[in-house]
Amino acid sequence: MHAYRSHTCADLNKSNAGQTVRLAGWVHRVRDHGGVLFIDLRDHYGMTQVLADSDSPAFGSIEKLKAETVIRIDGRVKARDAGLVNPKIPTGEIEVYVTDMEVLGAAEELPLPVFGEQDYPEETRLTYRFLDLRREGLHHNMMLRARVVKSMRDRMWAGGFTEFQTPIITASSPEGARDFLVPSRLHPGKFYALPQAPQQFKQLIMVAGFDRYFQIAPCFRDEDPRADRSPTDFYQLDVEMSFVEQQDVFDAVKPVIQGVFEEFSDGRAVDADWPLISYADSALWYGTDKPDLRNPIRMQVVSEHFAGSGFAIFAKLLEQEGTQVRAIPAPGGGSRKFADRMNAFAQQQGLPGMGYIFWRKAEDGTTEAAGPIAKNIGPERTEALRLQLGLGEGDAAFFLGGKPETFEAVAGRARMEIGRELGLIDESTFKFAWIVDFPMYEKDDEGKIDFSHNPFSMPQGGMEALSGDPLKVLGYQYDLACNGYEILSGAIRNHKPEIMFKAFELAGYGREEVEKRFGGMVKAFKYGAPPHGGCAAGIDRIVMLLADTANIREVIMFPMNQRAEDLMMAAPSEPTNEQLRELRLRVIPKEA
Amino acid sequence: MHAYRSHTCADLNKSNAGQTVRLAGWVHRVRDHGGVLFIDLRDHYGMTQVLADSDSPAFGSIEKLKAETVIRIDGRVKARDAGLVNPKIPTGEIEVYVTDMEVLGAAEELPLPVFGEQDYPEETRLTYRFLDLRREGLHHNMMLRARVVKSMRDRMWAGGFTEFQTPIITASSPEGARDFLVPSRLHPGKFYALPQAPQQFKQLIMVAGFDRYFQIAPCFRDEDPRADRSPTDFYQLDVEMSFVEQQDVFDAVKPVIQGVFEEFSDGRAVDADWPLISYADSALWYGTDKPDLRNPIRMQVVSEHFAGSGFAIFAKLLEQEGTQVRAIPAPGGGSRKFADRMNAFAQQQGLPGMGYIFWRKAEDGTTEAAGPIAKNIGPERTEALRLQLGLGEGDAAFFLGGKPETFEAVAGRARMEIGRELGLIDESTFKFAWIVDFPMYEKDDEGKIDFSHNPFSMPQGGMEALSGDPLKVLGYQYDLACNGYEILSGAIRNHKPEIMFKAFELAGYGREEVEKRFGGMVKAFKYGAPPHGGCAAGIDRIVMLLADTANIREVIMFPMNQRAEDLMMAAPSEPTNEQLRELRLRVIPKEA
Repeated sequence: MHAYRSHTCADLNKSNAGQTVRLAGWVHRVRDHGGVLFIDLRDHYGMTQVLADSDSPAFGSIEKLKAETVIRIDGRVKARDAGLVNPKIPTGEIEVYVTDMEVLGAAEELPLPVFGEQDYPEETRLTYRFLDLRREGLHHNMMLRARVVKSMRDRMWAGGFTEFQTPIITASSPEGARDFLVPSRLHPGKFYALPQAPQQFKQLIMVAGFDRYFQIAPCFRDEDPRADRSPTDFYQLDVEMSFVEQQDVFDAVKPVIQGVFEEFSDGRAVDADWPLISYADSALWYGTDKPDLRNPIRMQVVSEHFAGSGFAIFAKLLEQEGTQVRAIPAPGGGSRKFADRMNAFAQQQGLPGMGYIFWRKAEDGTTEAAGPIAKNIGPERTEALRLQLGLGEGDAAFFLGGKPETFEAVAGRARMEIGRELGLIDESTFKFAWIVDFPMYEKDDEGKIDFSHNPFSMPQGGMEALSGDPLKVLGYQYDLACNGYEILSGAIRNHKPEIMFKAFELAGYGREEVEKRFGGMVKAFKYGAPPHGGCAAGIDRIVMLLADTANIREVIMFPMNQRAEDLMMAAPSEPTNEQLRELRLRVIPKEA
Repeated sequence: MHAYRSHTCADLNKSNAGQTVRLAGWVHRVRDHGGVLFIDLRDHYGMTQVLADSDSPAFGSIEKLKAETVIRIDGRVKARDAGLVNPKIPTGEIEVYVTDMEVLGAAEELPLPVFGEQDYPEETRLTYRFLDLRREGLHHNMMLRARVVKSMRDRMWAGGFTEFQTPIITASSPEGARDFLVPSRLHPGKFYALPQAPQQFKQLIMVAGFDRYFQIAPCFRDEDPRADRSPTDFYQLDVEMSFVEQQDVFDAVKPVIQGVFEEFSDGRAVDADWPLISYADSALWYGTDKPDLRNPIRMQVVSEHFAGSGFAIFAKLLEQEGTQVRAIPAPGGGSRKFADRMNAFAQQQGLPGMGYIFWRKAEDGTTEAAGPIAKNIGPERTEALRLQLGLGEGDAAFFLGGKPETFEAVAGRARMEIGRELGLIDESTFKFAWIVDFPMYEKDDEGKIDFSHNPFSMPQGGMEALSGDPLKVLGYQYDLACNGYEILSGAIRNHKPEIMFKAFELAGYGREEVEKRFGGMVKAFKYGAPPHGGCAAGIDRIVMLLADTANIREVIMFPMNQRAEDLMMAAPSEPTNEQLRELRLRVIPKEA
């Protein structure tokens, strides 16, 4: 017989009754039923009930077992009486009478119990991650993550893509976030960088003549920590294709993402209708470029009903250039109480408030509009508003005015709050949307034109478009939103050096700087670059959606805490003097 | 029609004749056959011959095309005349008459031609890697590598293993080589390290209750460059299993490695017989722990025939303790010329020489032994030697004496040289051997006891063995050798804290130091650790064997040069002052 086990803890059932078996696993729980000891013996695969009575030679040692000790037992399988069968676990038909027991790995008193899954401070959970991972929830999440990644990979290969590994110790390539640097020992004073993404490498792979690349790629950004972001390394499904337009990328990627969601949705619906929504429409309709389409509410521009109206605040506001009034329809929200609560929500979010109208049954049985705005703009405009928004008795509408950038984000959050409060959101669905036509440029805080997203994207209209107003130039750039999160981002790339230099010039980067920063790629484009494009999907984020958690540390095997420390392995730590000497580095003491 | 292509450059055949198609790709070669221009149009998939005569509106622009320009052509497919069919390529039955041509990506004069595959200095090849990768050889190697990795993964999943990602930015964990360090911005003065291997993490995954782990894992070692080693990152197939003994690991891994070799052997034989050879036997028989079993020569101890013999050098030598004489049989090497050549080889390798005997046909038709040794030891001993070595007329034997460690390595190289010279090595075969029973400890140059390999291995005999002579302790530690290379290394781990502390104590590490260096793992072992073991296989090395190259840069997409520089991306490079300031680091100027 094998030294440790003849079966796993999920293997045995009634058909094994009478057999002598060997099992190994962790002591999940010991129960003493007056002279009979029951152990739930747990391994990766499942749980088996083993027991010893005072006749068993192992009784004495089993009695002393601490939780989470690793043991090996020999025993005889017995079918349980019908009344004692546990249909919830595969081994629920049997139990094993222990004849021999050996401790394979002793356990001290636990700082974190495994059985019971009580909540514990995250500090403790991360320090004893190896215990926390034994718990059912995290164990399940890790297996889910592994299977999701495998499924992505299989689907990418099936779609004709090839996975290539790109360098991890490489050149600094500023792409928005901060690089992690790696000092070079062979070239003291010089540094490598860890890739923020394999962006340049995947484009070089296309220039090198490979057609369809993907990689489950580790990415590294030295960003300030956030609950839903790993402060060090994270994984992307990185994709690039040659000889493609935007729609080709969508067609290649959609079956992969949709397939993965369907495979792991665990009963939740996966909507197959993925609308294309322009960045501008998404901002207007949803107040965000990552709309949650499970919420049916769509905002509308209603300026015309307020211009010159008796509602002076909006009427005056609309006289300024660039202002709008937008409405958030709230079907079923037609009560003063609800309207006041949402108004208070807007105030919490930093706005002066949200005006509203709600429609109720009047005493004479007809529908009447209530609220101060309705009074101020009068019945005709109120009715026109109602008709535009498609609302009726029992519904409400909220209004926000000003320059859209001042209220858009709050409007987006209010839309979600309204949807949640009114129960309009189907939590058991995944809904997707392609967000397209992102602007190439935006004005930064100092009024300077800068890239709004990826500087490597092809501007729509090419060279010609770049000679007009930069703020009007759209890029072949896109995101995929799912349930309010951005889960993928991509672009058709700018593969023509001249258009690339021009695009950078508009953002204030001279030819020399571009060649210095992105030299490898720019040089490559001079020797026959194919049109190409692709995307990168956030794997941690996708697993979080599937695992239904908002904490990224629930889907990573050994995560950092929010101060970017590994509490289990004690990282980062002080280097030795010899290490610093070899790298020719000195740490500057903190100023007093 | 699609903007860029209706077919790839490998798609078209006779059945497409008459169709109007669109193709895109690189101009591999243009030939001017007096008024008719032939282009070999190349993409990832293949090559298609397209042509234009002076009637074609595209003729003028095609005439000007530079090699490696990316173009899109429209044209009509025509079947070739029978005499012109090229059976070597899938599209050899057709050619495409160009009606329209568009340049998608212009090409300047090339620093490195793609067509022709002439050899170029490695400096140029690495600087223009994106051009070098377009060549057939490298393109093939990259696809081979990708498929090998996929095959490994599929086989591991099929074997019940789950792939988990372990941290890349993590704690320093000295395991032999030098760490790459990553300065922390949030904790200035502290550093992360990139993992030399996920050794501790995979063991923690076992302690966390997962049963069979694998990972195609990036590993990072700051080692001095060597032709067959990447100076920065490289990949391992990393494996760990719980509740296993050594043979279980072999049984799990063999089908994966053997399967991969069979799948990609490209006609070479893959020997299914993988003998277990002890480290001691391997050293004796082959002079190395990575024997090349394609070479049938096995060395033997022949001390008894020389002790007290008339060959004074060996006879005297054998009077000292710890000395041996070993023979390298050389079937078919029975000539003075050959024997002298091998003797010269040993001298080149730094030994005084190799004694030899060879057997030839005497004038009377009988077999006679020739060479000075035969004369010195006399016919009886010579015949006993011949019988022991199983040699006869036309064969030779070479002899080396002394303390084995002084000549073993040269003996190993001589064995290979002899095998090669005599044509005994079947180059078209892959032959494997498990090397087992490695010693746990060795004496370092200063006579101090230190770990000879992995300090985390379980000593054979456990605690008891550790109380005897450390140099006699063997570990449950193993390698897999293939054709003279180590392609995999592993061990059953020491999962019991007390045995671990004892094992480290013998090597001079106190309890405190062990807890400081490997604290995360040692702590974990106190809370119920299962017996576990595993291995790591070198992916770059395996692909090198399959691709039949000795240069690791031929199997990595974007390799560093031997000075650990990325010539294409210009890494490493000088950091900005702001980067250094954020990390609170100062570079110490080189001393004058």
